[in-house]
Amino acid sequence: MQGILEPMARKGITPQSTDFSEWFQDVVQGAELADHSPVRGSMIIRPYGYALWENVQKNLDRMLKDTGHQNAYFPLFIPLSFLQKEAEHVEGFAPELAIVTHAGGEELEEPLVVRPTSETMIGYMWTKWIQSYRDLPQLLNQWANVVRWELRPRLFLRTTEFLWQEGHTAHATQREAEEETRRMLSLYAKLARDYAALPVWEGLKTESEKFAGAEYTTTIEGIMRDGKALQVGTSHFLGQNFAKAFGISFQDKNSKNSFVWTTSWGLSTRFIGAIIMTHGDNQGLIMPPRLAPIQTVIVPIYKGETREAVVSAAGGLRDELHAAGVRVYLDDRDQYSPGYKFNEWELKGVPFRVELGPRDLEQGQVVLKSRLGERETVALSALTTGMQERLAAFHQALYARALDYRDRHVWAVDNYQTFKARIEEGFAEAFHCGDSVCEQGIKDETKATIRCIPFSGTEAEGECVRCGRKSAHGKRLLFAKAY
Amino acid sequence: MQGILEPMARKGITPQSTDFSEWFQDVVQGAELADHSPVRGSMIIRPYGYALWENVQKNLDRMLKDTGHQNAYFPLFIPLSFLQKEAEHVEGFAPELAIVTHAGGEELEEPLVVRPTSETMIGYMWTKWIQSYRDLPQLLNQWANVVRWELRPRLFLRTTEFLWQEGHTAHATQREAEEETRRMLSLYAKLARDYAALPVWEGLKTESEKFAGAEYTTTIEGIMRDGKALQVGTSHFLGQNFAKAFGISFQDKNSKNSFVWTTSWGLSTRFIGAIIMTHGDNQGLIMPPRLAPIQTVIVPIYKGETREAVVSAAGGLRDELHAAGVRVYLDDRDQYSPGYKFNEWELKGVPFRVELGPRDLEQGQVVLKSRLGERETVALSALTTGMQERLAAFHQALYARALDYRDRHVWAVDNYQTFKARIEEGFAEAFHCGDSVCEQGIKDETKATIRCIPFSGTEAEGECVRCGRKSAHGKRLLFAKAY
Repeated sequence: MQGILEPMARKGITPQSTDFSEWFQDVVQGAELADHSPVRGSMIIRPYGYALWENVQKNLDRMLKDTGHQNAYFPLFIPLSFLQKEAEHVEGFAPELAIVTHAGGEELEEPLVVRPTSETMIGYMWTKWIQSYRDLPQLLNQWANVVRWELRPRLFLRTTEFLWQEGHTAHATQREAEEETRRMLSLYAKLARDYAALPVWEGLKTESEKFAGAEYTTTIEGIMRDGKALQVGTSHFLGQNFAKAFGISFQDKNSKNSFVWTTSWGLSTRFIGAIIMTHGDNQGLIMPPRLAPIQTVIVPIYKGETREAVVSAAGGLRDELHAAGVRVYLDDRDQYSPGYKFNEWELKGVPFRVELGPRDLEQGQVVLKSRLGERETVALSALTTGMQERLAAFHQALYARALDYRDRHVWAVDNYQTFKARIEEGFAEAFHCGDSVCEQGIKDETKATIRCIPFSGTEAEGECVRCGRKSAHGKRLLFAKAY
Repeated sequence: MQGILEPMARKGITPQSTDFSEWFQDVVQGAELADHSPVRGSMIIRPYGYALWENVQKNLDRMLKDTGHQNAYFPLFIPLSFLQKEAEHVEGFAPELAIVTHAGGEELEEPLVVRPTSETMIGYMWTKWIQSYRDLPQLLNQWANVVRWELRPRLFLRTTEFLWQEGHTAHATQREAEEETRRMLSLYAKLARDYAALPVWEGLKTESEKFAGAEYTTTIEGIMRDGKALQVGTSHFLGQNFAKAFGISFQDKNSKNSFVWTTSWGLSTRFIGAIIMTHGDNQGLIMPPRLAPIQTVIVPIYKGETREAVVSAAGGLRDELHAAGVRVYLDDRDQYSPGYKFNEWELKGVPFRVELGPRDLEQGQVVLKSRLGERETVALSALTTGMQERLAAFHQALYARALDYRDRHVWAVDNYQTFKARIEEGFAEAFHCGDSVCEQGIKDETKATIRCIPFSGTEAEGECVRCGRKSAHGKRLLFAKAY
């Protein structure tokens, strides 16, 4: 009986090797994570995709609160003049702004920008809230939507409107602000590794890739299953740039006035893009268990008079698993066949599927199918007690699988011809002279960018992979084509 | 010693009886719930206010999920043409729209509206997602920001941008949609009563007060401590208005095509305004315990060498209370005096304050001060075990207090002169002819509106309080001046 219920080859999903971009679109829409909106570049996050985002939010939010941050909410609209106070900032964001010119039936005196990020608004408010050292540090975060006009939009990766959290902190000293910058990057790396099973590099962006207005930007970078890079989260040390632009100063214990030191850091719905493209296969998504909206799905298998007994037993199992803290869903929809359901839940990447038919019930067992491939028969009485352990093992296996992919797609390269070849398949670790003109040359010639100067790289010197000049940064840098 | 630490009269807070509006502004800003933004009409929700909103969200979100609703996210920008598809809808919202005309450095071909509400966008997507009876019901909710340009903005009550949840559902039958409309209103009423300790009326809006595009609107209405009404949440039965405007139809089991029946319902950051104005007094806020960001604050009282022992004992108490599920905060800031702290936490409305000094410690006791006034001495060892019960009793007392205020500010009125007098102090229960011209006359002459036709009113007939014609609706209606 089980034979005819084997998952069919996934219809309607372009294979990854045929066209990775098409595969991505097919999976995002087929699994009902998101849909295109009629407004170019903006997206609709459907319930299954939003549930995944809620799990990201819940875990990250707890981590932010545990490290002393407080949530607040700042306005969507920012006066255009605010952005202009910090020269690099407005230069970086001007081409991407959406502008409200009319409201309440009238033309506005000053156009309003739909926030692309909130440094300027928060900076302005800090001038009111920060007077003394007693008011520091300010450790704020907001969950919000932001708008950056995109010419080549892609669901989750590059949308005109996206959801994110943006953290903004102000400190009395440079040291504290730099420590905060690194602390938040580590926290993002932890979220990526321990919750989303994403192996990421932590590192520093070059001058040409840093946030507009920052002293420097740190980043976590992931590798997708087409070998391209995705920037998963960034944390910026803003120095006193915004403090000076807005005049955010405080009186220290000795009544001396100083400018504050600020940071900002953000992680967006792009994170979902990273999950999709790091773990997915030709059958669809594979959800990391700690963030999966559904960790285990139960598919009862019945015909006619066996329905009641099977669905009732499946309901009991559902209640047991739920009580054990498992996010479980019983798919007892009559209008779909088991085969249809198997396909749907594989496409949606649910880590475990429990199949329960009349024969299984008689024998006191279920068939347990892992989205990573294993199929086993488990005693009905033993399923619940072992499930949390299985989910933890699934997470480990998923992480190991992603790490293995990464290990096989990163190469130390010292020759520009080899570099060009490798960059088509993955990452190149190479020396670079540190000259931004040469960096731009690499981008123009290969489409690859310096993803980061990794914090973990071993100290070494060499010749620039492109121009042969002496290397800067004291280590190899990570190059890749990026989303 | 305690004598000199008695709460001082609240400085900088206008008494309610002097000017309720000023009191409101003073409390909102003094308690750091919110602040004005430099953009007229929009507000900044500060961490203490946002924590309150998060508690509203958490509880309402759970109630929504328990009733089968799923969260999703729809775009901020809506093509202007979408709003124009439903004639009443665009007429109602046009004067309040904010319009994006330029983006990405260019003028847009079609202006985009910043969503004032999302019926039209969701309606459009439903035409894609709904094909068959199998796709129904659609039970969607989104947590989002919306923009409605306000000419007379007020923090929390009437802001250009506000946060809310908006539920949108589509059903196969009228009956199901009408049941949903009432179910969601009941759920709002439960949130108001059981979590925020707000006594609310549930009822129907008149034609002139209904949502633009609805068949009818149901509402929960609260009474504030100045006798004015606040609409706390609304649930709309939209009939087939949006279904026909957008063409949202489905094939039923007999392959017959029909339009769906839809509902929408929303509750916003106004809810916080209701909490403030229902419970607050001249000392500041009073937080309903189930939503309070901090339920109990511990203020250690020490001088010099007694600090270590007192703060250490207070820390132990904090850990105990935290372990017992109490949201507790230990205020061990050295730079502020106990008196300053007492004032601050009273202004912020924390339900219970624990005072712990060296003498208390010797005697194994604490002083427990309720924000509702009672002060008692409690054995240190008994405080934690009794705290949840005390918080529940505080909630009951707060609700009873609000209900008592309400009972003393609602009058059955049959005479227009009396009506005009009563409306200055609270609510009038009166008969009305049902004619919208007469309804407008009352508004013009008294500023009072029909808040609702209450579901709970006893059946009765009478003469219209203004024009003397025979009453409509078969019961007395609730009139008040409203925010």
